[in-house]
Amino acid sequence: MKTLKELTALVDGECIGDDQTQITAFAPLETAESSDISFLVKAKDKDQLTQCRAGAVIVPMDIEEADLPIIRVKDPYLASAIIHTCLLNKVFTAQGVHPRAYLADETTVPDQVSIAPLACIGERVQIGERVSIGSGTVIGDDVEIGDDTVIKANVTIEHGCKIGKRVIIYAGAVIGSDGYAYATDAMGNHVKRPQVGTVHIDDDVEIGANTCIDRAAYGVTHIKSGAKIDNLVMIGHNVVVGENSLLVSQVGIAGSTTLGRNVVLGGQVGLADHLTFGDQVMVAAGSGVHNSQESGAIIGGYPAIPMRQWVRSVSQYAKLPQMGRDLRKVKKAVAALQTDSDK
Amino acid sequence: MKTLKELTALVDGECIGDDQTQITAFAPLETAESSDISFLVKAKDKDQLTQCRAGAVIVPMDIEEADLPIIRVKDPYLASAIIHTCLLNKVFTAQGVHPRAYLADETTVPDQVSIAPLACIGERVQIGERVSIGSGTVIGDDVEIGDDTVIKANVTIEHGCKIGKRVIIYAGAVIGSDGYAYATDAMGNHVKRPQVGTVHIDDDVEIGANTCIDRAAYGVTHIKSGAKIDNLVMIGHNVVVGENSLLVSQVGIAGSTTLGRNVVLGGQVGLADHLTFGDQVMVAAGSGVHNSQESGAIIGGYPAIPMRQWVRSVSQYAKLPQMGRDLRKVKKAVAALQTDSDK
Amino acid sequence: MKTLKELTALVDGECIGDDQTQITAFAPLETAESSDISFLVKAKDKDQLTQCRAGAVIVPMDIEEADLPIIRVKDPYLASAIIHTCLLNKVFTAQGVHPRAYLADETTVPDQVSIAPLACIGERVQIGERVSIGSGTVIGDDVEIGDDTVIKANVTIEHGCKIGKRVIIYAGAVIGSDGYAYATDAMGNHVKRPQVGTVHIDDDVEIGANTCIDRAAYGVTHIKSGAKIDNLVMIGHNVVVGENSLLVSQVGIAGSTTLGRNVVLGGQVGLADHLTFGDQVMVAAGSGVHNSQESGAIIGGYPAIPMRQWVRSVSQYAKLPQMGRDLRKVKKAVAALQTDSDK
Repeated sequence: MKTLKELTALVDGECIGDDQTQITAFAPLETAESSDISFLVKAKDKDQLTQCRAGAVIVPMDIEEADLPIIRVKDPYLASAIIHTCLLNKVFTAQGVHPRAYLADETTVPDQVSIAPLACIGERVQIGERVSIGSGTVIGDDVEIGDDTVIKANVTIEHGCKIGKRVIIYAGAVIGSDGYAYATDAMGNHVKRPQVGTVHIDDDVEIGANTCIDRAAYGVTHIKSGAKIDNLVMIGHNVVVGENSLLVSQVGIAGSTTLGRNVVLGGQVGLADHLTFGDQVMVAAGSGVHNSQESGAIIGGYPAIPMRQWVRSVSQYAKLPQMGRDLRKVKKAVAALQTDSDK
Repeated sequence: MKTLKELTALVDGECIGDDQTQITAFAPLETAESSDISFLVKAKDKDQLTQCRAGAVIVPMDIEEADLPIIRVKDPYLASAIIHTCLLNKVFTAQGVHPRAYLADETTVPDQVSIAPLACIGERVQIGERVSIGSGTVIGDDVEIGDDTVIKANVTIEHGCKIGKRVIIYAGAVIGSDGYAYATDAMGNHVKRPQVGTVHIDDDVEIGANTCIDRAAYGVTHIKSGAKIDNLVMIGHNVVVGENSLLVSQVGIAGSTTLGRNVVLGGQVGLADHLTFGDQVMVAAGSGVHNSQESGAIIGGYPAIPMRQWVRSVSQYAKLPQMGRDLRKVKKAVAALQTDSDK
Repeated sequence: MKTLKELTALVDGECIGDDQTQITAFAPLETAESSDISFLVKAKDKDQLTQCRAGAVIVPMDIEEADLPIIRVKDPYLASAIIHTCLLNKVFTAQGVHPRAYLADETTVPDQVSIAPLACIGERVQIGERVSIGSGTVIGDDVEIGDDTVIKANVTIEHGCKIGKRVIIYAGAVIGSDGYAYATDAMGNHVKRPQVGTVHIDDDVEIGANTCIDRAAYGVTHIKSGAKIDNLVMIGHNVVVGENSLLVSQVGIAGSTTLGRNVVLGGQVGLADHLTFGDQVMVAAGSGVHNSQESGAIIGGYPAIPMRQWVRSVSQYAKLPQMGRDLRKVKKAVAALQTDSDK
């Protein structure tokens, strides 16, 4: 339980109303009760507050007062994430190593960890404080895992990968599988190229369920701090994903492509290999990109072109049959005019 | 073993020939033996019956007789599914809880279940009658699983999800992982929004291998009864999939999108977030949809447009270079004519 | 450790320089030390050799000499794969069946295997010599696995599938899940069609992480020898993938489609059902294919058209808005000319 005053301090906001109001939980406007705090993103939706039974509401600065206590902030969406997280008050409770987990002989773990039944930890694995590892998860030899990292169930982390602090890896993800690389002989047979690199995942990264991040051929496949990767994403060998980049579900990135900071790739986007993206590049969902991109580029389409151009081409695309008909008519008319003028 | 008479009764058909013929199994036309029943979907393929050695064949109503016993039905494809299933005669045989499975202390299960070795069941899980849970599968705390549901190997179901009756969840699927939701601060860092909702999967649903269904931010991500979801599909938080909808492999649906009944999404289709689809919407494979759709809409393309229009634009697309050339010629001709007429 | 002479013999090359040079490892040009061998793919990059500290370099035939020992070969990319693999010298070391693995009663295994803790092997499974099975992997009843095959962690192989020799199956893959096949009744309910076939994976195949290969309805889904399948690929029931075909990440192939030898499908390609592809068909990344293809076809686009035509249409696509404007102008000009000529 927190007072409104305490919550207001968390988000650098201004409390209007009784700042001693006690708040126990967070809930959306429609379902919030008197002990809950809720949030409103846009001032234009202020009417929604009249029927709201919340104990308090986080609102944008444009709203100056209301019939119930409010916390005014610049970004209610952000403030609500911070306050919700605070109210959940998830304190790590170490459950130790479950007797039905498997730990290889040469691995020792700190006291403050939770390793679930049927988790499987290889040799010489280094596990940080307050790490949690789910059932069915398999950690290969010589893996390093930083403090406060959470690894859910049925994850596979292959040998030698390094995982930072406060990372979350969701169920079924596979980190450090071999990159897809073959040399083809004269008979058309493919000879596997050894993949002797590894994967480094920096602090505060999240990796979605059933996502795959391949190990490097040599060197590292590198996911930099704060990047958030959704479910079923494919990241090829030697890829670099820049700080705070967002990769939405089912994205695929081919080998050795490098992304800058705060790049955003929409769902199902595909990137070719060996590209270089600057910072803050944005790619529309479903696009395919074959060229490197300058910082700030906003692109879409298959293959991707600048967003503005793509939007215009898209609207024209549906008119293609009409254009075809118009063009045939015009050709006929011009031919007729030419005949006339030849007379 | 069944008589033709018994099988005919199952599918509301008409048996022509000896209805006491004994049938033990189901097989395709090419490989069927005298104790098998087979099926023919289209009357125009009737010639295939002449070389067939099956004991009987399920045929469409257009076929009135044949040299071997037949069951005439309206829909041979449907009837064959029903008869094949009957002949397989898969009776649930409870194998109990394997001693090498892990059951948390506060979970009790009915006698009539099969829980495989190295399955892992959390606290307070409610498991129905005749439920089968595969090896390597991890069921989180407080999950509910209805009668006659089958959960294959290496599945992950996170805490609090509810699974209906007669559901099949294939290997590697992940149900109830956190939705992908972040608020971004002024520095470009992403703050995770807590995902405190859950997933409800209603009766008779099937979930494909390595498919991911994220839990709701609040409330539920809801897969309604009879929906069939293929492999490697991604379903975002707070999505609703309507009754009997079909989602083919590698479909991706972004957060809070709602589908009506009997919607069909072809392979690799992507839907944006917060859309509403009516009933029986059909989307061609590979399409991307950015707008809500009325019931009965049939659409295709990226971004999707009405199917008829898309088909016409597609056929024009390959002619684009020719159109470009024609247009240049016409422009030149018009310019020449204008010069002539100015003289 | 090998001498240059020994390595040269492996790749049918020509050694220029001291062929008694001792080589212990393989490394890229930038990081190679004096005991390493490295490689250079293209003669035009020969300048890179001047700063290289490698003990020797594999080079193309166009390079005739260098300041350090070289092995001249036709294909340095291929030769480096062979030499790197040789230097890694990975000899199989049997670790036996770990006491924490689960083996069903009716399954026996050869001495020369490595079955990891928490692997789970069903009844009557046949396992070849020098097979390695990872933790968390679940092998169904009656599966057959050939000699020297490696199955990584958390893989699921359903009952009755046959896996060849020297196959590698990466983490999280699902082999032999039910095909996606339903018959729909008059009420719009979907009746599951039993999937009683299996999956055959021939020798030297690789299957990527979290890839799904469905079992056949009847008969087999067949992955032929030497095919290499990347991560997160979906292969439907009754599909045939020809010898040495390459399927890049996130490809999806619908039911009963057959590919010839050495077919190459780029990332995220989708193929419709019941197609037939000849040998050496190549499909550009992100394409969708709805038609069967002759051997040697090179196609791209959605839906796919011949590559040359697609490339031209793509370049025209961005000019569509300009074409639209031009066409409107031309129409107006023609109308004006027609008015003039009518006078």
